[in-house]
Amino acid sequence: MPQDGNSRYLRCMKTPRYTPLALSLPSTVPFVGPETQERSRGKAFAARLGANENIFGPSPLAINAMQQAAEEIWKYGDAQSHDLVQALAAHHGIPAQNILVGEGIDGLLGYLVRLLIGPGDAVVTSQGAYPTFNYHVAGFGGALHMVPYRYDHEDIQALFAKAAEVDAKLVYLSNPDNPMGSWHRGQDIVAALADLPEGALLLLDEAYVECAPTGTAAPVDINDPRVIRMRTFSKAYGMAGARVGYALAQADLILAFNKVRNHFGMNRTAQAGALAALQDQNWLTHVQGEIATARKHITEIAAENGLTALPSATNFVAVDCGQDGDFAKAVLDSLLAQDVFVRMPFAAPQNRCIRVSCGPDEDLALFAAALPVALAAARSACAADIAS
Amino acid sequence: MPQDGNSRYLRCMKTPRYTPLALSLPSTVPFVGPETQERSRGKAFAARLGANENIFGPSPLAINAMQQAAEEIWKYGDAQSHDLVQALAAHHGIPAQNILVGEGIDGLLGYLVRLLIGPGDAVVTSQGAYPTFNYHVAGFGGALHMVPYRYDHEDIQALFAKAAEVDAKLVYLSNPDNPMGSWHRGQDIVAALADLPEGALLLLDEAYVECAPTGTAAPVDINDPRVIRMRTFSKAYGMAGARVGYALAQADLILAFNKVRNHFGMNRTAQAGALAALQDQNWLTHVQGEIATARKHITEIAAENGLTALPSATNFVAVDCGQDGDFAKAVLDSLLAQDVFVRMPFAAPQNRCIRVSCGPDEDLALFAAALPVALAAARSACAADIAS
Repeated sequence: MPQDGNSRYLRCMKTPRYTPLALSLPSTVPFVGPETQERSRGKAFAARLGANENIFGPSPLAINAMQQAAEEIWKYGDAQSHDLVQALAAHHGIPAQNILVGEGIDGLLGYLVRLLIGPGDAVVTSQGAYPTFNYHVAGFGGALHMVPYRYDHEDIQALFAKAAEVDAKLVYLSNPDNPMGSWHRGQDIVAALADLPEGALLLLDEAYVECAPTGTAAPVDINDPRVIRMRTFSKAYGMAGARVGYALAQADLILAFNKVRNHFGMNRTAQAGALAALQDQNWLTHVQGEIATARKHITEIAAENGLTALPSATNFVAVDCGQDGDFAKAVLDSLLAQDVFVRMPFAAPQNRCIRVSCGPDEDLALFAAALPVALAAARSACAADIAS
Repeated sequence: MPQDGNSRYLRCMKTPRYTPLALSLPSTVPFVGPETQERSRGKAFAARLGANENIFGPSPLAINAMQQAAEEIWKYGDAQSHDLVQALAAHHGIPAQNILVGEGIDGLLGYLVRLLIGPGDAVVTSQGAYPTFNYHVAGFGGALHMVPYRYDHEDIQALFAKAAEVDAKLVYLSNPDNPMGSWHRGQDIVAALADLPEGALLLLDEAYVECAPTGTAAPVDINDPRVIRMRTFSKAYGMAGARVGYALAQADLILAFNKVRNHFGMNRTAQAGALAALQDQNWLTHVQGEIATARKHITEIAAENGLTALPSATNFVAVDCGQDGDFAKAVLDSLLAQDVFVRMPFAAPQNRCIRVSCGPDEDLALFAAALPVALAAARSACAADIAS
């Protein structure tokens, strides 16, 4: 054996040997995070209104619980998130066996797609809906089929019809919707299940449902094998950085996650924080009020600038900039340049909008000050384009 | 459309449609966590010495950093873990492009296996080595090939020979080893790479390397495409509950993780805590001393009971109970019944041992008090078995 094993590696060009699927995947990212943008800008944002984070924050009791739990961070988290699952079971009035806690909805989406979707398996979603779901589907080789929004709402009938057409194993629907903020009544979703083709599982992403009017949460029978719902502590509960989501579904499907999930993947402080956040429903009510106020405020700012804000059941508002995606992109770019972090929908015609997260008055004041400048800049750029 | 979509679900027995691979997987768990055991026992453990957690805990600065970061938990974590990666790059004297931070080594193992291993792809590990790695390999349909330990050490030559025989894409080696605590010199691993077959990637799990003698960390060329190393903040750094690990490898392989990883999967407080922990190398030195003392203490307790403790380069000690796996299991069961949580290796002949994590004197005193009782109980049970 040679003394230096390192000398041999130059000829080992075949290592590592990726799967054909891995080789076919792009190294793209669903979203560019605000910190990444700040580093490439060389400058921090003054208002962070782009990631639908909840700037009003979590319950102080949740923060305190996390700080307490940090003292015990030497222990792994409970692999079953037992206390949180029990509390969620009581909160929802369902058995614990119908609940799985995981590393945010993003983590749960990955596990669910892995359980169901292999190369070529059909999946249906809306054109311009949550890209991280698409990322997971592509990552397991699934074939994504998309239907357009209808009047800025996800089109349930079209989604289910497409699912029947392509024999989909999985159908994605977010209610309320991201990025448009629109929503369906929960009872309408349950009624529409009659048209969900056999063999298709409806993944109902209810990440924003605590921000929505009463009746938005779909009253799905917890034993209905056709639906899995996902909830999160990242939005109304204000704990995006903790990574805690949960799934509600029939017990067999919940159990199946144990085949693939990272059993010791939960951060221990996050488990404690989510439990405390759930137990402080007064704080949730307070935040719901703040969100409603901020939505109204964003709507007013839009109106003052001659723009229309779309009705929203979420903690963000899509503001229709009144022209096409290029124009909205120019508005967005100017807002970013003015240190106001916002995002915009990916697909036309929703990309005529910018998407502004709810926040306290001081953040919205920065947006209000920057928007007229951004609109003027976009109109000027647009005029220059036409002239050239 | 019927008014109640729920009425239809009883005939949808085909939903959800799992992949053939998912259907083939058992719902087993790599480890049963201590909290799960406590719930089934109906009683808390008095000493938590089974999960190789670091009871000495993390740097107080790390705890403080996590507590501070909890105030900003409404923000998602930085998708690039930029500050931590930069600090790790400086710490290791390598470029940032060669480092990936992820959700503990467990999370990183899952991503790596997913990138390389599809149904039927060959993987080599040792009989009785880390079961969570095996869990991930099975979870992606890989074919596990195992070689026995050799004198309680993982057998590098046998691992690499088996890899050549089965055309393995991935070879797992932990150094120091879990569950035996044994180790190889880092330079011997690098020299052995000359025998690693072309097309095989060596996954070198160095989770415990900060507990090991100088020279244990393998001096692998960071651009060597044959090796990926994994490190963690769960062991010597005392942050198991935070879920922070990292991989060291050639830049292309690091980049490939971006195809499949959960980009916003890191807990924000964990990122801050790991950074602070890394920056407090004095605390690490302190903990290394405590671990060395505890190893000596466990060795003495074993000797007082006529047992042999194996040499250890980790934060745990494998104690040879001197008989077979059934005997060690009887010892283990009695220790558990006496509220002392320990574990034992899974495979013969290593399962003649119990595995005891390092801890403060008060925890080890509980172990010391319980061990003679456990040995007597095991001998009695063994004698009864022979008599019957």
